[in-house]
Amino acid sequence: MNFQLNPLRKNLLLAGLVLLSPAAALADAEARILKLEQQVNQLLQQLEVQNAQITQTQEEVKQTQVVTQNAVIAKTNGRALSFESTNGAFKAQIGGRLQADAAYHNADNVDLGDGSSFRRLFLDVRGTVYDNWNYRFQYDFARPGGSDSGQRGIRDAYIQYTGLTPAITIGQFKQPFGLEHLTSSLNTTFIERGLTNVFNPDRAFGVGLSHGSSNWSASAGAFGDKSEANAADEGNEGWGLVARGTFNPIIEKNKLIHLGAAVLHRNPEDTALRFRERPEANITDVRFIDTNTIADVDDYQQYGLEAAAVFGPFSIQSEYINTQVKRASAASDLDFNAWYAYASYFLTGESRGYKANTGTFDRVKPNTTVGQGGIGAWEVGIRYSAADLTDGSFIGGEQENLTFGLNWYTTDNIRLSANYIKVLDVDRPGNAADGEKPDIALVRAQIDF
Amino acid sequence: MNFQLNPLRKNLLLAGLVLLSPAAALADAEARILKLEQQVNQLLQQLEVQNAQITQTQEEVKQTQVVTQNAVIAKTNGRALSFESTNGAFKAQIGGRLQADAAYHNADNVDLGDGSSFRRLFLDVRGTVYDNWNYRFQYDFARPGGSDSGQRGIRDAYIQYTGLTPAITIGQFKQPFGLEHLTSSLNTTFIERGLTNVFNPDRAFGVGLSHGSSNWSASAGAFGDKSEANAADEGNEGWGLVARGTFNPIIEKNKLIHLGAAVLHRNPEDTALRFRERPEANITDVRFIDTNTIADVDDYQQYGLEAAAVFGPFSIQSEYINTQVKRASAASDLDFNAWYAYASYFLTGESRGYKANTGTFDRVKPNTTVGQGGIGAWEVGIRYSAADLTDGSFIGGEQENLTFGLNWYTTDNIRLSANYIKVLDVDRPGNAADGEKPDIALVRAQIDF
Amino acid sequence: MNFQLNPLRKNLLLAGLVLLSPAAALADAEARILKLEQQVNQLLQQLEVQNAQITQTQEEVKQTQVVTQNAVIAKTNGRALSFESTNGAFKAQIGGRLQADAAYHNADNVDLGDGSSFRRLFLDVRGTVYDNWNYRFQYDFARPGGSDSGQRGIRDAYIQYTGLTPAITIGQFKQPFGLEHLTSSLNTTFIERGLTNVFNPDRAFGVGLSHGSSNWSASAGAFGDKSEANAADEGNEGWGLVARGTFNPIIEKNKLIHLGAAVLHRNPEDTALRFRERPEANITDVRFIDTNTIADVDDYQQYGLEAAAVFGPFSIQSEYINTQVKRASAASDLDFNAWYAYASYFLTGESRGYKANTGTFDRVKPNTTVGQGGIGAWEVGIRYSAADLTDGSFIGGEQENLTFGLNWYTTDNIRLSANYIKVLDVDRPGNAADGEKPDIALVRAQIDF
Repeated sequence: MNFQLNPLRKNLLLAGLVLLSPAAALADAEARILKLEQQVNQLLQQLEVQNAQITQTQEEVKQTQVVTQNAVIAKTNGRALSFESTNGAFKAQIGGRLQADAAYHNADNVDLGDGSSFRRLFLDVRGTVYDNWNYRFQYDFARPGGSDSGQRGIRDAYIQYTGLTPAITIGQFKQPFGLEHLTSSLNTTFIERGLTNVFNPDRAFGVGLSHGSSNWSASAGAFGDKSEANAADEGNEGWGLVARGTFNPIIEKNKLIHLGAAVLHRNPEDTALRFRERPEANITDVRFIDTNTIADVDDYQQYGLEAAAVFGPFSIQSEYINTQVKRASAASDLDFNAWYAYASYFLTGESRGYKANTGTFDRVKPNTTVGQGGIGAWEVGIRYSAADLTDGSFIGGEQENLTFGLNWYTTDNIRLSANYIKVLDVDRPGNAADGEKPDIALVRAQIDF
Repeated sequence: MNFQLNPLRKNLLLAGLVLLSPAAALADAEARILKLEQQVNQLLQQLEVQNAQITQTQEEVKQTQVVTQNAVIAKTNGRALSFESTNGAFKAQIGGRLQADAAYHNADNVDLGDGSSFRRLFLDVRGTVYDNWNYRFQYDFARPGGSDSGQRGIRDAYIQYTGLTPAITIGQFKQPFGLEHLTSSLNTTFIERGLTNVFNPDRAFGVGLSHGSSNWSASAGAFGDKSEANAADEGNEGWGLVARGTFNPIIEKNKLIHLGAAVLHRNPEDTALRFRERPEANITDVRFIDTNTIADVDDYQQYGLEAAAVFGPFSIQSEYINTQVKRASAASDLDFNAWYAYASYFLTGESRGYKANTGTFDRVKPNTTVGQGGIGAWEVGIRYSAADLTDGSFIGGEQENLTFGLNWYTTDNIRLSANYIKVLDVDRPGNAADGEKPDIALVRAQIDF
Repeated sequence: MNFQLNPLRKNLLLAGLVLLSPAAALADAEARILKLEQQVNQLLQQLEVQNAQITQTQEEVKQTQVVTQNAVIAKTNGRALSFESTNGAFKAQIGGRLQADAAYHNADNVDLGDGSSFRRLFLDVRGTVYDNWNYRFQYDFARPGGSDSGQRGIRDAYIQYTGLTPAITIGQFKQPFGLEHLTSSLNTTFIERGLTNVFNPDRAFGVGLSHGSSNWSASAGAFGDKSEANAADEGNEGWGLVARGTFNPIIEKNKLIHLGAAVLHRNPEDTALRFRERPEANITDVRFIDTNTIADVDDYQQYGLEAAAVFGPFSIQSEYINTQVKRASAASDLDFNAWYAYASYFLTGESRGYKANTGTFDRVKPNTTVGQGGIGAWEVGIRYSAADLTDGSFIGGEQENLTFGLNWYTTDNIRLSANYIKVLDVDRPGNAADGEKPDIALVRAQIDF
């Protein structure tokens, strides 16, 4: 399709125009006009064809747009699957988490039960409808080896309305108390939470209010029991009130100071209460410290203090929780305590993630990814934690642990962890566990998707 | 790229043509031809470029079409997530429902157990493959507080072939009996079904036939036991036959009359049978009426009559169920009854939804949506319901309830409900519940997604 | 838009050129030049318009590409729903399976319990993140009627890294032993596996290595117990080592020879071991052969041999497993055996599917689909299987079965099966089952999605 005139020939024609007679010039012009007419006709035909092509293409593009614009778009951030309508009013995410543990224990008098098991195996469905309504349903299918059969169960399951400030949540969710408690089990620095976990209130069925901004968070709630607690029980449920606030005097990229405080009041069901805790390892079902059932409880209060700091790859964190149990006779009131402090360091330079509007730590994002040419993120940590469930003549036991941790974040949603837990002391006179100082080696493979 | 001749200049040239000598005219024509040749060349080049552009764009459109046409399209109706292949032969939907309840009871002699719990917590996967094959799998993860541990379980789970008339269903699904029973728990006017529920046959494992049109439905089935019933039982299962038909003499937009009848025959497992029912509230585990195990049962028959009418925002509905138990000795045959009648009214003008081809009520669609500037739909209702499990000297108890209901449909898939249930009378001589007239306050937050 | 010159008029003009005077010719040329100028101007304008159209269309295509390229594409192979990012680094699949069974038994002395139930009811989520990391989580919600309540549970649940050779798997998955055991329950020729299943090691929690190619596979692993086994048990877990290899001397389209061998070593928990098996039918909870708990077990070894051949629609398959139990006293060591052999034939000409890189049989793809004008695939089969749990004076029982099978694959993911099982003999002196020769009729409807 090359209709262009040869430039040389054009010049010759021009030269001819000057030299030739008008008749010859006219004949030459005629020829050139004829050629032009042919070319213009061809051009017109081609334009017709192109017009048809463009019209058809536009139609096809419109159809494709209809398909993609009416649709919900499926997306991934590389690890999880989510869906969002093009107007953003509708969102949905389907995922889960898997934590596979194995433990080896070395104890003197107590058989802690070596073995392996799933620690958590969640399905997790959440979403947003009509802009301002969130929902979440999270179920744990794991039944850790050695633990009782009631372990499987509903985790987060709620409806939330975000059209007001604060947001309102109804259903089951974590009671707002405790930094390590509220940080997802996916993102705790050590495999299990510290001994302060003995006082963590866990999830319960209730109503909550929450709000937060770029450097603070506040949340409160009124709660009944866990939805599946006491399934065989006919009596009235217990109830409680919980509130927590956090503040960040410094919050910059890879630099953070976190301060928090929380308070909890609770009337337990049937005036009965129990605190007990495993030794920062969950394959075993043995608890070195255990109040057993405390009877005649009117109510109890908990006070929690939190502090943490992140400076680039280095981080420190500490919590203290005091629990005061009020009983029928003031003489038998009880006062318990627990605290921990830890430090962690990323050998590969990453920083811990953080969500200021909820005052909790978040996912670690490795600088490089294993399987895509990288080595992932490597973190080491050390934690001291202690709990005291003994008050005067009431002996629930005292325990101190030292834990060394190594985390390998191969991707931002896969983590391999190894913890060595040295129980420094168990002080629980009259119990078989008294004086136990076991070594525990614990490993975990974890993915969330 | 403006090659257009100035119209003024063109006119000047035309004027020149008349005035000038042929030689001058020829020279002018020459110039114009030259210009035309240049323009045509440029046009040809531009067309080349455009052709390339169009070809490339078409190629890109084709690739996008491949992506979108080979793909399954993710869609939402605003509340739920579904998928459909472009040829429609494949569909899938992943969703669930959450119902969070709390109850306060005021009774004289019986502790009904105040508290809160999930009433239902479903995951629900369904779809279509190869045009005519449907499947559904629905599981309830809730274990209502106070009820026994067997509550969790499989709900709908079946394979259905729609390539024939009637459609054939194999697996577990609701036995076709009872209007309120067959209407989804998402769409019942009151939080719990009326006392007729004592006779509702629930889901069972079986084979069903169903068909329906714009103003009638018919369904029948043969059923064994519920798939998870009697898990520890070694004996042969019970079995039954059920059939139901419905008809709509009037069915227009917001105007409806529903008439229905159903019959059920059943041989219970091990000749044992029991009917019992909670007081239209499910947090409690107490049943005021209870036949306990009826022994020596040959078989039993149930007859159900249904009627309902919708006139704009106003609706009435009623059901009657008669149950006749045939036992080894005709003298000990038993005859039980239950019925309810209710009226409801939408303060905001909506109408109840209805599916004629299954003869059941459907979702309410609020005229406006909370969180998008609206107030949702508001409905009030009142129901009387009664059940009689006493026949002659056989005393299972009689109960009458009056229930006042308030529903706030904030969106078409979120509903907040409050019911006040006044137990008018429990007539069960010899039982602790005899003469009880408790007040029950019940609230529910519900979403389906 | 038709600017083309009428050819007749053109010829007339040409004729005029020759006949007319130069002045007339010049005037004619003038007219034609004017016309050309107008046409070229129109062409130029049209090109402008087209350019704008092309630019806009390209922009729209680019936007659509952004939507489809940034997105995860939802896909289906007609039966299942899957998702894949355009770069292939991320994949996800959400599905499940449903098997609905009914059984009728005819036995002399033992009540096998006729009935119906779900045999399997899986949800199944799997995917790939960051190219080389796979995960899977599969849960069985079924609690077959008649079996104990522990039946529900975790099936496959693991993290796998495929960036190395062999691939490494951590979590719970099938121990690599036994052709029929490793072939999905969706794809076994008969409804239940043969009596060799008494020795199949099932899934367990462990670490595995696996690799395979177009005509061989190899896999090995170290395993603890099943993740949910012995939940109430405080002791240390059992552990074992397993390895299997397969080879295909012939592997062509619809033509296959499979040879395989496997070995297993295991130290059971608490030195206790039990083998028992249902009669190739799962509605009943009765086991005709049962070693009961074998005490004082040091460890045990299993040796498995596999052979299978496919020639078009015809297939044969056989397995032999020998189990040697080492006990505290060599005198009480035990030696057990089981084997089966079967043949199957597709009346409709299909061939059994096979995956060489795992050495297991795969899905049957019917030539035509029911509901889309076809009749599906029809297969008949016959199997003999035998197990011997008796060794000297230790009587666990011997059993021989003959099974006739009919499979109707209506689509490639829906199958209706009927099996008639004739128990040829139960040789278990001293037990009620001794001499039983029951007939069992078993039907199944199955879908996977």
